[in-house]
Formats: sequence, structure tokens, C-alpha cells
Amino acid sequence: MMMRMGAVMRKVVCLLAWLSVGQVSGSYLPQDMNRTLQDLLQHYKISKSDIYDGKHVFPKEELKGKMESQMLFMGGVLEAYDKLFGHMLKGLPTPSPLSATSGDKADTSGPSTTEPSAAGDTRFNLIKVLQKIRELKRHSYQEQLKVLHGLQKLKHIEMDNIKVQGKALWELPWIYEKANSLADNVMRRRRRRRRQTRTGLAREPERRAKGQQ
Amino acid sequence: MMMRMGAVMRKVVCLLAWLSVGQVSGSYLPQDMNRTLQDLLQHYKISKSDIYDGKHVFPKEELKGKMESQMLFMGGVLEAYDKLFGHMLKGLPTPSPLSATSGDKADTSGPSTTEPSAAGDTRFNLIKVLQKIRELKRHSYQEQLKVLHGLQKLKHIEMDNIKVQGKALWELPWIYEKANSLADNVMRRRRRRRRQTRTGLAREPERRAKGQQ
Repeated sequence: MMMRMGAVMRKVVCLLAWLSVGQVSGSYLPQDMNRTLQDLLQHYKISKSDIYDGKHVFPKEELKGKMESQMLFMGGVLEAYDKLFGHMLKGLPTPSPLSATSGDKADTSGPSTTEPSAAGDTRFNLIKVLQKIRELKRHSYQEQLKVLHGLQKLKHIEMDNIKVQGKALWELPWIYEKANSLADNVMRRRRRRRRQTRTGLAREPERRAKGQQ
Repeated sequence: MMMRMGAVMRKVVCLLAWLSVGQVSGSYLPQDMNRTLQDLLQHYKISKSDIYDGKHVFPKEELKGKMESQMLFMGGVLEAYDKLFGHMLKGLPTPSPLSATSGDKADTSGPSTTEPSAAGDTRFNLIKVLQKIRELKRHSYQEQLKVLHGLQKLKHIEMDNIKVQGKALWELPWIYEKANSLADNVMRRRRRRRRQTRTGLAREPERRAKGQQ
């Protein structure tokens, strides 16, 4: 009886830990995706000491501050998950047509040591979650991904090419002007919005009073 | 007389070309920075065919759309200029203490073939412009640079490490929730602001009428 109680308590503690670390509110995460993730976690097991070592793969500190900045960082995180799932799929053993018919075990080299059928389930689950991530990217993060792709292009600038250096100098006056005017416009718009919000809040009681008349 | 007229005309055409390509409005670009850039362009000469080949080092197409997105891309552009100037400074010949005292020419290997004193001027000019770029970054693009540095960290994720894969799966519910709620909040805020702007515009004549009373 005591052992059963202990097992139940352990499960409750695990659930609380999951909720506190994952902070799953359940309002956006569909039930079936949650189940799929839990199945995947059976395959990609990690120890409790690894979970609570204080190091996140995706640091939450970056998801603070201005919402537009958070959105952009989140766009990068979703891109990283997309890439990561690609690596995870590649890491799964692929059953050859021969082993699939003869019942032999597939090549288990690589990070996973599961049998072909289990690997098939994992593959299916990974693809399911990956589709959800891609859906979210397409639906809500298009603008951010466009900026990220633009930024990636900057990485290919040939910094040691003297022609590129000269051309970049030639382009600098326009860029410098634009950078300054952009910052000024954003600053002015923020001030205007703060003013509008204040005016709106000040008018709210007046509006309500009119509504009650 | 005709030759002098031709030279003047050429200068006017060059000035117009500069204004149209660079679109220098002069409202943010300080006079001395403009002069420094023109001096630098004497050193980093590029042919007209290279200027007008239709390929920009920093594509202007990315500087359209939502202002926050433009600001972020611009943050990346300023970072790239900072790096580029570093490469340009490295590319300049450094006069050794010996050659500086004996009057020998400094090592002219590398992209530049100028003499030490000219290289010294170029170095001084490059540092001057670089300081202006860094000032702008520090003054108006801190928020954007913070996001960019956060995004850079994502590049170091060990995608093939099974422990990292498991941990990323463990973090996914929270990330998925956050990504959805963030997108929803931004959408809601945009709608509210559009409504506020419409209300503000509708109330403007009323406000003016009251002011005239």
C-alpha cells in the first residue's frame, strides 16, 4: 500500500515538474500533440539531472522585452526546431526493404538503438510534430522568417573583396540616412501611441458615462 | 572653353548620380562624415560599371514592410558594416617603426597599394566613419542588436547530440505555447491600435470644433 502511494506521489511530482518547467497551459497545445511529444520523450529519454541542470537549449531570457523582438527571436527558435527535427529524422535507423520483409533488425547505428517498428513510430511522431511547427511558422511567423532570411544573406558578403568594400562605402550615405530616419520614425510613432493610449484611457470614463445616460 | 564646360557638366552628372544612388538628403549625414566618405572613395575606387551593375551589397528590398522588421534588418546591416570596416582596416599596410623612421615604404601587400602616409589618412578616415556607425548602433539599435546576438547563439546548438534533442523536446510544449500566445497578442494589439487610430481620427473634427468654441 505504501509502495503504491509512493508511486502515485512520484507521478504527481513528475506531472508538477512538467507543468512548472513546460508551463503547459493547454490553451494552444493540442491534446494529440501533447501525447505525441510524450511518446517521443519515451524514445529521447533524458535524466532528471539533465533536465534540471539550469541550462536551456532555448534560453527563456531572450523571450522578454518588446513583443516584436520576442516574435523575431521566436521565428529563429522555430527555424532551429525545424532544423533539429531534420537531424533527428536523419539519426533514426532506416529499415532496408530486405530487413523489413525478412524480419531482421534494421541497422541500429547512430544515436537511436530502437527496433525498426519503434523507429517507424518515432519517425511518424517526429513528422507529426514537425508539421505542427511548420504550420505555426507559415501561419504566424512569415514576416519574421523573411527578415531572418534577409539577415542570412548578409553572411555571404565578401568582406575582403576591395570592389565590395568600395561599393559598400558608396552605399553607406543612403544606409546611414535610412538607419537614422527609421529610428526617428519608430521613436515618434511610439510617443504618438503612448499619447493615444493616455488620451484613450482619459476618455474612457467619459465614454462610459455617456453610455449609461 | 568647351573643355571646361565639359568638365563642369561631368561633375554635375556625377553629383546627380551620387544623389540618386545614395539619395543623400543631408538631414542626418553630417557634412564632415560626407567629406570623409568622399575621401575614402578616392582610395576605394570603383568603376561606374560596377556601381550601376544593379547588384547592391545591402539590398534595399529588405528595407520595406513593417518598421520593426526594417529596424531589425538595419541592425544586421550596421553589424555587417562594423565587421567590414574591421576587414578594411586589416587590409591597410601597417608601417613598421623602422620604415617609419628610415623613410622606407611600408609593406604594400594586401588590397591597398597606397603609401604609408596615405594609408594613415585612410586608416584615420575609416576609424572616423566606424565610430559614427558604432554611435548609431549604441544610440538607436541596442534592442535589435540584443535580438541578433540571441539569434547567433542558436547557431551553436549541437543538433546531433541526443541529450540536446531530448531536452529540446522537453522544452517544446512551453515554446509552442509561447509562440502561439505571442502571435495572438501581437495580432490583438495591432487590431486594437487600428481601432484606436480610427477612433482618434473620427474624434479629431469633434476635438477641433471644441477647440474653436
